[in-house]
Amino acid sequence: MPVNLKPAEGLKPVPGVSLSCTAAGIRYRGRDDLVLIHLASGSQVAGVFTRNAFCAAPVVVCREHLAGTAEARALLINAGNANAGTGQAGLDAARRSCALAADALDVDTEAVLPLSTGVIGQALPVEPFARALPILAGALDANGWDAVARAIMTTDTVPKGISRQCQIDGRTVTVTGIAKGAGMIRPDMATMLAFVATDAVVESGVLQALLNEVVAESFNAITVDGDTSTNDACIVAATGTAGHAPLTAESSALPVLRDALREVCVWLAQACVRDAEGATRFIRVEVGAAASVEEARQVAYTVAQSPLVKTAAFAGDPNWGRILAAVGRSGLEALDLSLVNLYLDDVCLIRGGEPDPDYSEARGAAVAGKSEYCIQVVLGRGDSSATVWTCDYSYDYVKINAEYRS
Amino acid sequence: MPVNLKPAEGLKPVPGVSLSCTAAGIRYRGRDDLVLIHLASGSQVAGVFTRNAFCAAPVVVCREHLAGTAEARALLINAGNANAGTGQAGLDAARRSCALAADALDVDTEAVLPLSTGVIGQALPVEPFARALPILAGALDANGWDAVARAIMTTDTVPKGISRQCQIDGRTVTVTGIAKGAGMIRPDMATMLAFVATDAVVESGVLQALLNEVVAESFNAITVDGDTSTNDACIVAATGTAGHAPLTAESSALPVLRDALREVCVWLAQACVRDAEGATRFIRVEVGAAASVEEARQVAYTVAQSPLVKTAAFAGDPNWGRILAAVGRSGLEALDLSLVNLYLDDVCLIRGGEPDPDYSEARGAAVAGKSEYCIQVVLGRGDSSATVWTCDYSYDYVKINAEYRS
Repeated sequence: MPVNLKPAEGLKPVPGVSLSCTAAGIRYRGRDDLVLIHLASGSQVAGVFTRNAFCAAPVVVCREHLAGTAEARALLINAGNANAGTGQAGLDAARRSCALAADALDVDTEAVLPLSTGVIGQALPVEPFARALPILAGALDANGWDAVARAIMTTDTVPKGISRQCQIDGRTVTVTGIAKGAGMIRPDMATMLAFVATDAVVESGVLQALLNEVVAESFNAITVDGDTSTNDACIVAATGTAGHAPLTAESSALPVLRDALREVCVWLAQACVRDAEGATRFIRVEVGAAASVEEARQVAYTVAQSPLVKTAAFAGDPNWGRILAAVGRSGLEALDLSLVNLYLDDVCLIRGGEPDPDYSEARGAAVAGKSEYCIQVVLGRGDSSATVWTCDYSYDYVKINAEYRS
Repeated sequence: MPVNLKPAEGLKPVPGVSLSCTAAGIRYRGRDDLVLIHLASGSQVAGVFTRNAFCAAPVVVCREHLAGTAEARALLINAGNANAGTGQAGLDAARRSCALAADALDVDTEAVLPLSTGVIGQALPVEPFARALPILAGALDANGWDAVARAIMTTDTVPKGISRQCQIDGRTVTVTGIAKGAGMIRPDMATMLAFVATDAVVESGVLQALLNEVVAESFNAITVDGDTSTNDACIVAATGTAGHAPLTAESSALPVLRDALREVCVWLAQACVRDAEGATRFIRVEVGAAASVEEARQVAYTVAQSPLVKTAAFAGDPNWGRILAAVGRSGLEALDLSLVNLYLDDVCLIRGGEPDPDYSEARGAAVAGKSEYCIQVVLGRGDSSATVWTCDYSYDYVKINAEYRS
């Protein structure tokens, strides 16, 4: 049961993008599992990928193709098999699937970006791609977003997607994004994939900078269990069909697109946490008054990843001892606990390192019992801050991750 | 149910050390919860303490007393109340309890080292100390080890203690140690305490160096959930009554004492992991062929603390994908997965970054189904290595940590 998250529906088409999906039978039976996304000529494409040294074959190939000279014209996404831990055979399979998509679309092989999500360590068969790609190429549809959001799911419980629109130079610009999974949250699953498209006109190079910026505040600000997938990838495409003047790094309208892109990415990142396995609470960890953004993030992640904090959260327990202990071990130089304040939403638990005189267990429990709340840590060291979103650890976290066998 | 761990029994007395315990009623009813340990004059004492910036009052006072000019003559340990997160009142309580012990033993207040373990954030009452200390002082007994090992327990399921003897200059030297809890593994509990005593004669300064050395290979080589207690402490005392020539840093017999001390500390550290809450398996994580000991430890800890590795371990699942993914995200520069080998005991799962041709799921599952086994990662980067001991994450881990309320 995801925390306050409805299935994606009515996603807005993005001019220049058409999509299709089909049941290729790569792993699942009776559901769509293969996706083709076609981009208009002239699209700018940028990507960020897992930093895990154990990265999957499609990540290697996708990086190569993005870095090459060919214009990116398509994404090919399969769900159910991550094509990770598969060695040279996996690289070959990824390249051959791209070649098949390229044939079907009459573009260069290097114009196709492959993405995979699913179980690790199983050979990816290429025949299903050969059978499915002519069908997919013939079924491309600008209204395919809802179906595709569903086709990329593995053990997600709801399809995740969102659209935003903004005005640039009097033109309506659409940003639509879909995602699956958060971090390596699912058993054996190599997980987080996100694809965001816009018809904005963006100069080459600007899109990658924009993506790096918003990813830092969205996909890189979530954690479920601290594990990082072998397949994490976020791809953004700007088709350039909206007809406004190209956005450069200096354009006054660039922040408008940045905000829309950020909204979409933050929504998708939070959706991944809301649908994390076993999650019963969605928690924002805010660390303020830090000496630097880096140390604020360090503290926020230490709190957000503490198993003791997360099991207390599951229990609805306003356990300030565990939160302070996580802050205390987060590795900050010369941390003075006597300057630290701690809040759950607007209830002050700790002021100056000690229980606030006005605090009562009942007031803390009222917040900790909610399905969404904020843990705020004020360090008293400076004026930097950071936010991380996370969830609790429930019985189901252990159950899903222990019992699932591929 | 601890993994292959029997209750401490028949611990050997250490000449120069006498112990007593009583039911002071600080928190528990109907069981001993307060311990006094007396050391002969001339004892050398060394300690290592939590690095958590949120450290408990007794840790602050214990550090002060050890650094002072007074000779350490006693330890005062209470179970059930950690005296952590208690501010100035907590420091006052720790100091007053030391003064009461000092009165009862006719030593300086600074000669008493206070240690507490138990729930965080509750005021420590001093009256129970006032009532109990005369009784404790009158009951000191060289044979008190077994009872004391039991009196320092909080939610441990078995008392933990071990004795070793060695020969130095033809004299029999005893090393006896007791411990409770591992890391901050228990709900609300500020946990790990260890006390080790020997009658060896050791020059001032040498004992601290010896302790630092063996702690790195024992208490600092275990992890349950990555959380660090506010009260972690390990104290070692050398009473110097064995009658051999004092051991200096250059003594040829020093390694004999070091080995005995290491054996005791490693045994106690492992006992804490074996008795970690919900543990059903005891796992040694060995990382070899690393470029440095530091990076070997970094990889070993990342694997040992991965919730996905730990839930797979609970399930008896030889899930190499999760182990490799943990290795891959452990932050090593330029890690080449194609050089990595992975073993469960003597079964090779991954050779050169890919599934070993001789590997079968059945062979892996045979090891992963055992109550004790080794995860061995060979990095192919150098000749350094490190070992970390850990356990699995079970339903009971979540249950104990979520449901417990103080």
